[in-house]
Amino acid sequence: LDRVFCLSVTLLSEYRVERDTFGELKVPADKYYGAQTVRSTMNFKIGGPTERMPIQVIKAFGILKRAAAEVNKDYGLDPKIADAVIQAADEVAAGKLDDHFPLVVWQTGSGTQSNMNVNEVISNRAIEILGGKLGSKDPVHPNDHVNKSQSSNDTFPTAMHIAAATEVHHVLLPGLQTLHDALAAKANEFKDIIKIGRTHTQDAVPLSLGQEFGGYVQQVKYSIERVKAAMPRVYELAAGGTAVGTGLNTRIGFAEKVASTVASLTGLPFVTAPNKFEALAAHDALVELSGALNTVAVSMMKIANDIRFLGSGPRSGLGELILPENEPGSSIMPGKVNPTQCEAMTMVAAQVMGNHVAVTIGGSNGHFELNVFKPMMIKNVLNSARLLGDASVSFSNNCVVGIQANTERINKLMNESLMLVTALNPHIGYDKAATIAKTAHKKGSTLKATAVELGYLTEEQFDQWVKPSEMLGPK
Amino acid sequence: LDRVFCLSVTLLSEYRVERDTFGELKVPADKYYGAQTVRSTMNFKIGGPTERMPIQVIKAFGILKRAAAEVNKDYGLDPKIADAVIQAADEVAAGKLDDHFPLVVWQTGSGTQSNMNVNEVISNRAIEILGGKLGSKDPVHPNDHVNKSQSSNDTFPTAMHIAAATEVHHVLLPGLQTLHDALAAKANEFKDIIKIGRTHTQDAVPLSLGQEFGGYVQQVKYSIERVKAAMPRVYELAAGGTAVGTGLNTRIGFAEKVASTVASLTGLPFVTAPNKFEALAAHDALVELSGALNTVAVSMMKIANDIRFLGSGPRSGLGELILPENEPGSSIMPGKVNPTQCEAMTMVAAQVMGNHVAVTIGGSNGHFELNVFKPMMIKNVLNSARLLGDASVSFSNNCVVGIQANTERINKLMNESLMLVTALNPHIGYDKAATIAKTAHKKGSTLKATAVELGYLTEEQFDQWVKPSEMLGPK
Amino acid sequence: LDRVFCLSVTLLSEYRVERDTFGELKVPADKYYGAQTVRSTMNFKIGGPTERMPIQVIKAFGILKRAAAEVNKDYGLDPKIADAVIQAADEVAAGKLDDHFPLVVWQTGSGTQSNMNVNEVISNRAIEILGGKLGSKDPVHPNDHVNKSQSSNDTFPTAMHIAAATEVHHVLLPGLQTLHDALAAKANEFKDIIKIGRTHTQDAVPLSLGQEFGGYVQQVKYSIERVKAAMPRVYELAAGGTAVGTGLNTRIGFAEKVASTVASLTGLPFVTAPNKFEALAAHDALVELSGALNTVAVSMMKIANDIRFLGSGPRSGLGELILPENEPGSSIMPGKVNPTQCEAMTMVAAQVMGNHVAVTIGGSNGHFELNVFKPMMIKNVLNSARLLGDASVSFSNNCVVGIQANTERINKLMNESLMLVTALNPHIGYDKAATIAKTAHKKGSTLKATAVELGYLTEEQFDQWVKPSEMLGPK
Amino acid sequence: LDRVFCLSVTLLSEYRVERDTFGELKVPADKYYGAQTVRSTMNFKIGGPTERMPIQVIKAFGILKRAAAEVNKDYGLDPKIADAVIQAADEVAAGKLDDHFPLVVWQTGSGTQSNMNVNEVISNRAIEILGGKLGSKDPVHPNDHVNKSQSSNDTFPTAMHIAAATEVHHVLLPGLQTLHDALAAKANEFKDIIKIGRTHTQDAVPLSLGQEFGGYVQQVKYSIERVKAAMPRVYELAAGGTAVGTGLNTRIGFAEKVASTVASLTGLPFVTAPNKFEALAAHDALVELSGALNTVAVSMMKIANDIRFLGSGPRSGLGELILPENEPGSSIMPGKVNPTQCEAMTMVAAQVMGNHVAVTIGGSNGHFELNVFKPMMIKNVLNSARLLGDASVSFSNNCVVGIQANTERINKLMNESLMLVTALNPHIGYDKAATIAKTAHKKGSTLKATAVELGYLTEEQFDQWVKPSEMLGPK
Repeated sequence: LDRVFCLSVTLLSEYRVERDTFGELKVPADKYYGAQTVRSTMNFKIGGPTERMPIQVIKAFGILKRAAAEVNKDYGLDPKIADAVIQAADEVAAGKLDDHFPLVVWQTGSGTQSNMNVNEVISNRAIEILGGKLGSKDPVHPNDHVNKSQSSNDTFPTAMHIAAATEVHHVLLPGLQTLHDALAAKANEFKDIIKIGRTHTQDAVPLSLGQEFGGYVQQVKYSIERVKAAMPRVYELAAGGTAVGTGLNTRIGFAEKVASTVASLTGLPFVTAPNKFEALAAHDALVELSGALNTVAVSMMKIANDIRFLGSGPRSGLGELILPENEPGSSIMPGKVNPTQCEAMTMVAAQVMGNHVAVTIGGSNGHFELNVFKPMMIKNVLNSARLLGDASVSFSNNCVVGIQANTERINKLMNESLMLVTALNPHIGYDKAATIAKTAHKKGSTLKATAVELGYLTEEQFDQWVKPSEMLGPK
Repeated sequence: LDRVFCLSVTLLSEYRVERDTFGELKVPADKYYGAQTVRSTMNFKIGGPTERMPIQVIKAFGILKRAAAEVNKDYGLDPKIADAVIQAADEVAAGKLDDHFPLVVWQTGSGTQSNMNVNEVISNRAIEILGGKLGSKDPVHPNDHVNKSQSSNDTFPTAMHIAAATEVHHVLLPGLQTLHDALAAKANEFKDIIKIGRTHTQDAVPLSLGQEFGGYVQQVKYSIERVKAAMPRVYELAAGGTAVGTGLNTRIGFAEKVASTVASLTGLPFVTAPNKFEALAAHDALVELSGALNTVAVSMMKIANDIRFLGSGPRSGLGELILPENEPGSSIMPGKVNPTQCEAMTMVAAQVMGNHVAVTIGGSNGHFELNVFKPMMIKNVLNSARLLGDASVSFSNNCVVGIQANTERINKLMNESLMLVTALNPHIGYDKAATIAKTAHKKGSTLKATAVELGYLTEEQFDQWVKPSEMLGPK
Repeated sequence: LDRVFCLSVTLLSEYRVERDTFGELKVPADKYYGAQTVRSTMNFKIGGPTERMPIQVIKAFGILKRAAAEVNKDYGLDPKIADAVIQAADEVAAGKLDDHFPLVVWQTGSGTQSNMNVNEVISNRAIEILGGKLGSKDPVHPNDHVNKSQSSNDTFPTAMHIAAATEVHHVLLPGLQTLHDALAAKANEFKDIIKIGRTHTQDAVPLSLGQEFGGYVQQVKYSIERVKAAMPRVYELAAGGTAVGTGLNTRIGFAEKVASTVASLTGLPFVTAPNKFEALAAHDALVELSGALNTVAVSMMKIANDIRFLGSGPRSGLGELILPENEPGSSIMPGKVNPTQCEAMTMVAAQVMGNHVAVTIGGSNGHFELNVFKPMMIKNVLNSARLLGDASVSFSNNCVVGIQANTERINKLMNESLMLVTALNPHIGYDKAATIAKTAHKKGSTLKATAVELGYLTEEQFDQWVKPSEMLGPK
Repeated sequence: LDRVFCLSVTLLSEYRVERDTFGELKVPADKYYGAQTVRSTMNFKIGGPTERMPIQVIKAFGILKRAAAEVNKDYGLDPKIADAVIQAADEVAAGKLDDHFPLVVWQTGSGTQSNMNVNEVISNRAIEILGGKLGSKDPVHPNDHVNKSQSSNDTFPTAMHIAAATEVHHVLLPGLQTLHDALAAKANEFKDIIKIGRTHTQDAVPLSLGQEFGGYVQQVKYSIERVKAAMPRVYELAAGGTAVGTGLNTRIGFAEKVASTVASLTGLPFVTAPNKFEALAAHDALVELSGALNTVAVSMMKIANDIRFLGSGPRSGLGELILPENEPGSSIMPGKVNPTQCEAMTMVAAQVMGNHVAVTIGGSNGHFELNVFKPMMIKNVLNSARLLGDASVSFSNNCVVGIQANTERINKLMNESLMLVTALNPHIGYDKAATIAKTAHKKGSTLKATAVELGYLTEEQFDQWVKPSEMLGPK
């Protein structure tokens, strides 16, 4: 199987020289980005490659730049230029030029440098398409053409909203739906298994395992509703506000047309933001979305925690559930199996809660016409959405669908429970029922024996009144 | 004006003896509460009087206990007992018995002790109404009658939701509306005042002061929408779920009737929770509401921060706004006036963000059939709602309505701004415009003089193209 | 036992008129505070009585004002005035005038109004001592005498540090020590009880119950160390910095003398802050202390969570510990006992974590020469310290000291555990040991039978190699 | 410059088959990792490549595995095997095998899979060194040899501490020192520039610009102290605790020798943790360190915020500082320059505060003998340390060192200030001084003219008493 790979590479030189309003800079010859991008890499050596601007933001910029070029064409931009920009922007949106976006999140808080990175890549790629010389800004200028009728201050928040909405729709909501369906199937499968309930972590009255899982189903159902409820304000796009929200240097109608074009391109109901000043200066919509994700995380923590405790054992835990065994659990304890999917999910939940605080702090610290915590905010929102979505799928497929009920154990625990005594309240009152339970606990005996011994009722009455299967609902 | 106040007090004894299932305890003779309440005061000496269960929770319990008594009466509870319970519960709801609720938040996490405190107070007061002996549990038993068809596990979350919804409707939303209206009036008043915009805290292109305030108006408008969007799930009541969500020891229809009775009593659209397991084991609805409050806090921080900076000075700050002078600002600097209302508001905002984390952590740590962070969660939600509501009113009345624009200063700053150069972009391109601005900045000269000197345009063109009043919107 | 209580009250009038630099105001005749305090109550109707400035801050102000008066006397303040101020300040420090401090936390962010509240109360009380007329500011002026050489900007942070250090020393550290000792006693009591360990909530290799509790002891030991490690910077006092940190209007040496006087009065090692600019503009020392409290809360959450799970049951849980039964656990489930002290502790932990975020946000938002989140910050720090301290004592006395080991259950679980197989690793290797455990789990048989059946070792070897009592440490 | 790159690659096959206790799996032929690593990539598709286990953790594992091999050799491990393991581990520590660690953070919460990834890579690489066959586990077994005397439960926390301490020492502390020195140089440079102070964002009494920067210097100085104060407990290593803290399957002395070997290898004062139960079940030491980083973030937010506001303008802001111009500030406003380094720093600060909450939540949710939020916790701690360290350097080099004082503007603002009136307090009292300031403010006149006009003092007295240069300290 010997193989030879050959690559023929034509290099005019390893670097070319580009300039911005601050002067000249060497740019790698094989990259479409220009001087401002290089300048940012020099000025912001913070965190390294893992801290790059999320690629979803770059793709969202591709969509936006395409939409803006279309609308600019309507308003008179040279069609040749517009079409080249559109083609280049489409490549950005399609992820074909991912290697040309080296900037990190920790740059200017308006995301100007990433907006210019996009402008530079698109203008150079468009120049290439049109047969021009990279870095010449001719015939396609990054500011005058690609950024026409735009400012970082409105494009970056627009890209934020496009990216967030896309991630929510393509990753998070499908992930939650998968989890919902997996849990609902289990709730149905387990609907006739009666088990001991636990409150305060202590034995309580019975419920069905299906009811218990039904609570989780409801949490995930509401998770989906909560995320959706936060979206209307995420669908509002800042584009058209330009530098401070007034829309200076745009044309009447530009904002609306860009929003509707983005809506067409994405299939999501984007509209132009009714108030551009709010849309630039505040990112409350992302704080709100992050708040929804935070609530989802809270639900996930509860569900995953329950499942790992119910599946604890195999011999010294609660042992009501048998969780799928997916991998060796320990490097030292042979044969050990652990609820690792629950662990991944709960770690994700903690991360999302932390991300939410970062988003909250960033969101609260805008000043005047601009919030300058934009890159940090969107990074965290996208991270939360992705992690929750992915973890939901992983947790569903690798844990939930394979959960089995340990019915033998479940029955044993349920039948021993002292809390079945609660069924006697309506018949003999709380105080006598309490005496039965306490006495049985003290003596280690059964409720029935104790109740009869105490003379509170007959054996027949006990059997008639204390039926776990009739304790699962109101009468 | 010498005065003598005399109080005649009849004391049968200073203490009476009551008992719970753990034994006897001395109870202050002048209090309606009983043994379980006293036991809690002995076992939970945490934080002192300032940490008491919020009185809104107690009042909500009054409403709930009344509703439950009504429904129990329908289902056959002795009308004499039911009516006495109703009368006593009404007194609790009306705040007439506030002194009888000494328990702190830091008790059992299900709020059982506060539920029993309510049960004891109502049963003893009902006994008194019916001429019985306090502490006798006869003819009104705290568990068997007052708590009939109920468990702390469903009543406490029900009271949580009633209290939260009530506080939102009676304090928070009116407060936000007041702020919205005050800001909207200012946005209108200031609509013709053109001023310099600021992005990155730095000079940017102009907008009107009305537009700037319009952004704040939008934030408050959305604040109201966000809170309202979180309410549907808060209107869901757990009552009827009893101990673990199954509704054991209730009657079919009880849950629905209690919810509709509470709705009638409060005028709020409460319904029975569709899934009682979720309603007891998770308090995601409160996490969600807290998330909405967190977003409101983020908006408030932005608005109050802006206003204090725009009003900074009087001589060495931005000085665009003149804030009302409400009190001496300093104990050492005579004549100093400070933006104290902004400070109160921003402190409230920080508190709400912190409260939200506490609620989030509590919400995520439920186990099995019960979340046992209930008292802590509702304390924080109520605190956030109250503080935001009150602070909004205070900020409106003592700051916003009295804000004046310092038009002289505003004009001066606007006219000196270099960023007016942006209006030239469509005419001479970004790069030349940048050269003008940079040169003018370097030389300390005006844009016009510099532009002409550089030969990029004529004086007439400058005057025609650079008109602040035409920079406030798209064309 | 009829009783009549009579109070004779002499009122010259119900109100007196006082004035500040903003004009005249009516002041309740029976209160020592003056116009600025009344003005604050009118301008800041936020949150109500439960939101009052923590009384610990007021008492700390009493100590500080006394110290300042002593030092001012050294520097020439009329001894008659100084002595009256000292006497009045002592009364404030002793809590004798608590009713005269009605202001809420949500006031000016510098705490100026509370500083003036203190100045007014002390000056009026001192005037009274000297036979003058309340509200006359003669012979003792609230600013010129009581506040001499001071500003709110340095006194409030000084009071913050005094209050925080005092609460840490008098409430938190003794509480943690109590908990440490209670846990250490149990660790010793349980040192010979061998039990199954649990990792990932799943069965693992054995340890002693004493070792398990020893981990908790270590956490509390480190909690104490962490709090102490944060104190050096809390002991630094801002007094002497006056308005912006320069010490304007003080005398050389004033700062040092005040700090040493406060140190004498409190018995705590206070020193003057080496940099007053930092001490006014930043409250990093309180963020740091809050961070230590946050870590303590994390430890407490772990410990309390473990104990409630280990004590879960009585029949369907882990059941290794028997927790004290302190009160009826349920209003519907007779005989139920819950780990309520664990619940109070975990709720406190969540609150402290939330408080920490509020402190962090406040601490990060100072501007220029002053942080104006002071009252909010100290409120949260004091709340965290008090809650952790009180909850530690409650948890110790009402839970830890009464914990019993359920040795029968512990032995049963331990002997059944499959993870004892780990002891075979050094003899037969990880892979074979894994096969034994997996096979035994699958067949429901014992490790020994399976091991022999698989032919990996003899019965004798098993007995020799697998001894729980020899699995508790290295060899 | 046409170039052709050719690579000749010999592939025996594209995959090899490896097995773990769960069965066989295909492993990429060019990778050293084995079945358990592949299994993890299949089971945990969460977040993608940006979510990989931080490479610092992998390198720390390299150090640990080398140390363990050395000690195991002392205790009898075949020197041939030990030496091969040492060589392979060194390569891991040196970053030569980074491509062989594909696992994400969101895996099992004990980090077992990453520990096994390391074990597999080292064993296969050692097998290769010894001429064996990859995947054969012969002569070097990943569990029996590489992981000898270890468990994920003690190795992962050991690697966490090594990684955290290394990042603190190599990135964070040097970064903070750089910032400290840059600010200190400026404080010295600016020591004679007198400027207006600002409290509550409003004009206050003067200080020197050097004093103002001196406050920042103190904050950074304390930042360094705070981080160092948290390190003693980070230097404690869990190694030797194995599965649950007992040290099962290790030898007496193993723990101490490993710690001292790691100390030698890293030059950092690592010691063995005094209580291994605490070291596995709790990660309070990382919560504590994260708390220190949170406090550092608070300081950074304050400093960066101040500098951007003091540098606001160029014409409509405070304008006291001239910040370096590093790049074009706007894609639409030509010539605009923004405080981008401040923005990066404040975004980092917000992120660190959010990370801290994630760490706190993870730290609080350990159960029994193991905390299973390990990968998430260390990811966040390392991220915070790196971001703060890098941002400090970037902020220093690209902002602080180039800051210039705009002395003309500073003088103008200072001389106009009304708060110079404070200097009159000791001479004419607070009330008269207040009247002067208020009158001058109202009339727009100077303090001196107003004071004389009001007859409170003479012109000579004013000149003598009000000297900004004498208002910078006590007298």
